[in-house]
Amino acid sequence: MTDGILTCEQIITAAQDVLRRYGPAKATVVDVARALGVSHGSVYRHFPSKTALREAVTHRWLEEAHAGLAAVMASSAPADVRLREWLTTLSASKRAKALDDPELFATYMVLVNEASEVIQGHITGLVDQLEEIIATGAARGELATADPAASARTVFLATNAFHDPAHAASWSRPEVEEELNALCDLLLLGLKPR
Amino acid sequence: MTDGILTCEQIITAAQDVLRRYGPAKATVVDVARALGVSHGSVYRHFPSKTALREAVTHRWLEEAHAGLAAVMASSAPADVRLREWLTTLSASKRAKALDDPELFATYMVLVNEASEVIQGHITGLVDQLEEIIATGAARGELATADPAASARTVFLATNAFHDPAHAASWSRPEVEEELNALCDLLLLGLKPR
Repeated sequence: MTDGILTCEQIITAAQDVLRRYGPAKATVVDVARALGVSHGSVYRHFPSKTALREAVTHRWLEEAHAGLAAVMASSAPADVRLREWLTTLSASKRAKALDDPELFATYMVLVNEASEVIQGHITGLVDQLEEIIATGAARGELATADPAASARTVFLATNAFHDPAHAASWSRPEVEEELNALCDLLLLGLKPR
Repeated sequence: MTDGILTCEQIITAAQDVLRRYGPAKATVVDVARALGVSHGSVYRHFPSKTALREAVTHRWLEEAHAGLAAVMASSAPADVRLREWLTTLSASKRAKALDDPELFATYMVLVNEASEVIQGHITGLVDQLEEIIATGAARGELATADPAASARTVFLATNAFHDPAHAASWSRPEVEEELNALCDLLLLGLKPR
């Protein structure tokens, strides 16, 4: 492979493979360059450090995990429907990541714990989406809240057993979906106008 | 020390010290017996296995962590007050355990992960207390729910960021109490009669 056609995407994909093969403790930028058949300088031209490369890998993984939320954000359904769909979609995609490829998920748990800024930005983006759903619902009179941003933070926190990877070990239980549904019921009762 | 006056409580206390000193991976029943100045047979007379002893240590620690809940259970205050107090008390005592003695807390996290039956029984006991508060409130017309047991499970799950040790790393943030209060507000709005 010549440097001319080396893209960030290709490097991130190679880095993911290398991380999976050698584990997050051992994987190096030289391993990534070797997998691509380029010099490590070529990799550093796109990512200034090993940390930057690992953060890019983490970022892409998180983005993929939440790609399904875009459809919910684009929907014009009532706020209670959208809120439930958003939470169900987030939970289902996290669960799929954890259960379909547990080894890769474990690798990402290590990366995620190193990349606190990436994670913080990512969580902020998710809570912003929730806020938009709640604010739209409040403007339409479908939901009642004086502070959509605060309500969004509270809903995100209340549902963390379904999206925080710290709880991944419990996601294979058959009752997970029913539990999330019951929780959505209670939260929506609390958010609906009286 | 003679065997005649050796109590389960003394053994559990010694075992906790030993676990803290040697760490959960290395601590043995022989270490506990040595610390007490008795034979390991004397320890086995009270606890049939190392596992049984470790579970007893875990059980006592969990019981201590929740001793404060008894006062809330004995109270005849309205259900919304009791529910908030119960959640606040549970969260505060878990937080104190985690922040006041992080080393011992880390030791217990290892024990807790081995003792799934002890933990399950313990969680069931907590959810039963929540159910009693909610059922009493529903009977008095202070809360509205067709299924107090299901509501109790949902409230426990919704608040797990404040009592599940998996979240201990976030408990030193100054906004923790405010967040729990906001979550209680939302959950109580969902549980109150319309």
